[in-house]
Amino acid sequence: MTLIPADDTFAARLRQSLPEAVLRAPEPRYLEEPRGRWTGQCGLLALPRTVEEVSTLVTAAAEARVPVVPYGGGTGLVGGQVMPEGPAPLVVSLERMAAIRGIFPQENVLIAEAGAVLADVQAAAQEAGRLFPLSLAAEGTARIGGNLSTNAGGTGVLRYGNARDLCLGLEAVLPDGRIWHGLSRLRKDNTGYDLRNLLIGAEGTLGIITAATLKLFPRPAGEGTALFVVPDPQAAVDLLALARDQMGEGVSAFELIAGQGLHFLAEHLPDIRQPFATPPKWCVLIEVGLARGLDPEAALADLFELALACDLTSDGLIAQSEAQRAAFWSVREHIPIANRRVGAISSHDISVPIGRIPEFITRGGEVVAALGDFRLNCFGHLGDGNLHFNVFPAPGRSRDEHANQSDAIKRAVHDLVHAMEGSVSAEHGIGRFKVDDLTRYGDPVKLEAMRAIKTALDPAGIMNPGAVLRG
Amino acid sequence: MTLIPADDTFAARLRQSLPEAVLRAPEPRYLEEPRGRWTGQCGLLALPRTVEEVSTLVTAAAEARVPVVPYGGGTGLVGGQVMPEGPAPLVVSLERMAAIRGIFPQENVLIAEAGAVLADVQAAAQEAGRLFPLSLAAEGTARIGGNLSTNAGGTGVLRYGNARDLCLGLEAVLPDGRIWHGLSRLRKDNTGYDLRNLLIGAEGTLGIITAATLKLFPRPAGEGTALFVVPDPQAAVDLLALARDQMGEGVSAFELIAGQGLHFLAEHLPDIRQPFATPPKWCVLIEVGLARGLDPEAALADLFELALACDLTSDGLIAQSEAQRAAFWSVREHIPIANRRVGAISSHDISVPIGRIPEFITRGGEVVAALGDFRLNCFGHLGDGNLHFNVFPAPGRSRDEHANQSDAIKRAVHDLVHAMEGSVSAEHGIGRFKVDDLTRYGDPVKLEAMRAIKTALDPAGIMNPGAVLRG
Repeated sequence: MTLIPADDTFAARLRQSLPEAVLRAPEPRYLEEPRGRWTGQCGLLALPRTVEEVSTLVTAAAEARVPVVPYGGGTGLVGGQVMPEGPAPLVVSLERMAAIRGIFPQENVLIAEAGAVLADVQAAAQEAGRLFPLSLAAEGTARIGGNLSTNAGGTGVLRYGNARDLCLGLEAVLPDGRIWHGLSRLRKDNTGYDLRNLLIGAEGTLGIITAATLKLFPRPAGEGTALFVVPDPQAAVDLLALARDQMGEGVSAFELIAGQGLHFLAEHLPDIRQPFATPPKWCVLIEVGLARGLDPEAALADLFELALACDLTSDGLIAQSEAQRAAFWSVREHIPIANRRVGAISSHDISVPIGRIPEFITRGGEVVAALGDFRLNCFGHLGDGNLHFNVFPAPGRSRDEHANQSDAIKRAVHDLVHAMEGSVSAEHGIGRFKVDDLTRYGDPVKLEAMRAIKTALDPAGIMNPGAVLRG
Repeated sequence: MTLIPADDTFAARLRQSLPEAVLRAPEPRYLEEPRGRWTGQCGLLALPRTVEEVSTLVTAAAEARVPVVPYGGGTGLVGGQVMPEGPAPLVVSLERMAAIRGIFPQENVLIAEAGAVLADVQAAAQEAGRLFPLSLAAEGTARIGGNLSTNAGGTGVLRYGNARDLCLGLEAVLPDGRIWHGLSRLRKDNTGYDLRNLLIGAEGTLGIITAATLKLFPRPAGEGTALFVVPDPQAAVDLLALARDQMGEGVSAFELIAGQGLHFLAEHLPDIRQPFATPPKWCVLIEVGLARGLDPEAALADLFELALACDLTSDGLIAQSEAQRAAFWSVREHIPIANRRVGAISSHDISVPIGRIPEFITRGGEVVAALGDFRLNCFGHLGDGNLHFNVFPAPGRSRDEHANQSDAIKRAVHDLVHAMEGSVSAEHGIGRFKVDDLTRYGDPVKLEAMRAIKTALDPAGIMNPGAVLRG
């Protein structure tokens, strides 16, 4: 079905039924994405204040067959928020719907509007003596509606799950403009199909999330952080199992760090204090959050002794203060920044079954070596089976010299991931950058079911056209 | 679209492409449901051994427009597994697909076929030193495919979530007979719409689940159980918050028990040892599972002292042995059996936001009292906001005397639940018994989206017709 641009006629019609402040002239910042690869278009920008205004916008777009691009914090890494081709869309930014509508500490529930910045949701939970555990690098900019639409991951997934696992209910505007009032605070509700999880992770292609009921958690009584040197990735996987045997759900993060990442840090961000005198080939950052009555530092020391006894570690640092904890995390968090300074030829946000991680790292190295002389920085959320497997030029060479190889590298790495029962998009989503990957690697029966659902709920195809599924 | 019965012609055609043992003559046990309210029909019974055989069955049914009723353990309480009206269906029992296909202790993952009995899945996890936490009264008979299709709840939800939260991936046959191979072991995979959660809780109306990847957990190092007398339901809710402040996720069950339930036990099951000399008006059963280094009995004793100091409890019993723990649970588990001996006029599996439970119990009592002289037994999974709110005749009177009032009672209770932002089916599902409730209380926009999805994935309407949505 042909879509129509959000032109002056469309804007004029909308102005009759919406407050003046809702409709704006497009601004460049809504057309950019963090990696600067694609530039979006915008026929008309809308900043609604209420779900009813969102409904008015989408109803008009559905009637006029105008494409709609929902916009959260704009931090997505796969181009879900920018539409570079086709008729210029109506961009709907949720930034003026940013209220915390309610907090129910006794129920461990918080209701936030879609435009609430993730860090503000975390802070509201903390003020109520609770924890909202979704945590990721862009949390100061990303908005909760976007986090849910992309089923965001981050560093808290090992213990608390993805964004999907942190949501009890949604308010949303469906592609025909009608409002679904589903802001349930219930932990148990078996009344019909799971529309909530269908919208979560749909990247705005099945409707616009306008508010969400979120799960809160008790704050751990004490937290501790350590860096353990491990001989190889298999030891890291075994150490994770040992840590969980000892501390159960108390293990809240388990991040793999490659020596290459520490070398990149030393070269490009020398102000970041190196934790070890000589960067080890592999180390892991372990974070624990324990209940009252347990001492995190003592528990990490016990884990170290046990791990040492079975050759899973050779050296370790246990943070003795909040400042040291922050310093350890700073090492982990600056690795992606150092990566950007070096300039990756190809980056991969992949997951494989946790037990197959060591094999993947070995075979991934071989696959890349077969294509040329490259450096690898493989790091990330090992506890979730999620690695960022990034390929860099050899010392003294630049990314530009290898531009023609990046497709071949990506293809080889993704083919391996697929062969090893993994996912080529672990936490970033499909957006527009990975639509071809989904077509290539996705289960064909699932893809056809997705298309049938998309057509059933959005017959005109107005919602975020070109994202997830090709139009 | 008109459906056709699974007649001899259909059976003859299927016999050409399936092993002899797959197709059987109907047996009465596939036509019964636990409450004896409805009787199903069966034109042809199939007991497939492989997903390919399930695919063959459903493909033929789709071509011939024969209705298909998937059958697990038959323990569902809302008639999802019996089809009393319409053309006699093909009943597909998964009981011969009961294998544990794999266990990955290091990944905390187990892959089970849909026909695996829940207790067998629990045992397989235990053998591997892990916990599969889904636990419910029917676990010796219920099968995991049915548990997932109904998004089963039970006593472990407070800590570990519903069946939906325990599943990483599915293998399923969709309504056109094609196989979706989605047995992912990944914790993070953002590649497209959440078909898994759409099938979970769809009660067999969108396809047949044939196998599932399940999440396992570390076993708690130590467990403890206590019964605390509480003055009223508000104190129970406050005590739950206090317990979670003290023990975080360590609180694994929190069950409300009404004095009426203990009286019913004393009358009808006098062999069950009463925990208190005089049944208190309200008490709670608390179960904790704590990490290494913590003493569950000491933690419960600390909680009791704190609760006593703020008048949240007046008396308590902390189990000192495994036998005592079992005895406390036996009290809780025999209350539904005593209820059945008394004979409820109307039973309600409802949930409300946890903070509103005290108000619901008060107002629910008033609503029922306005309709006549009845006894109430209100008990259940308070930690999940899920109560079983059951209405019984006054002493000396029988259920039959009130048969004409049960609809009015049900309506009054459900109207109150709906007005209080609750659910009229917390953990049992819609099946066929509650289709009218879903129509009455469901969000109309969600219902229409459900119908659109059903039509998109099952255009002929062959999958479990009459369940969840009216045909």
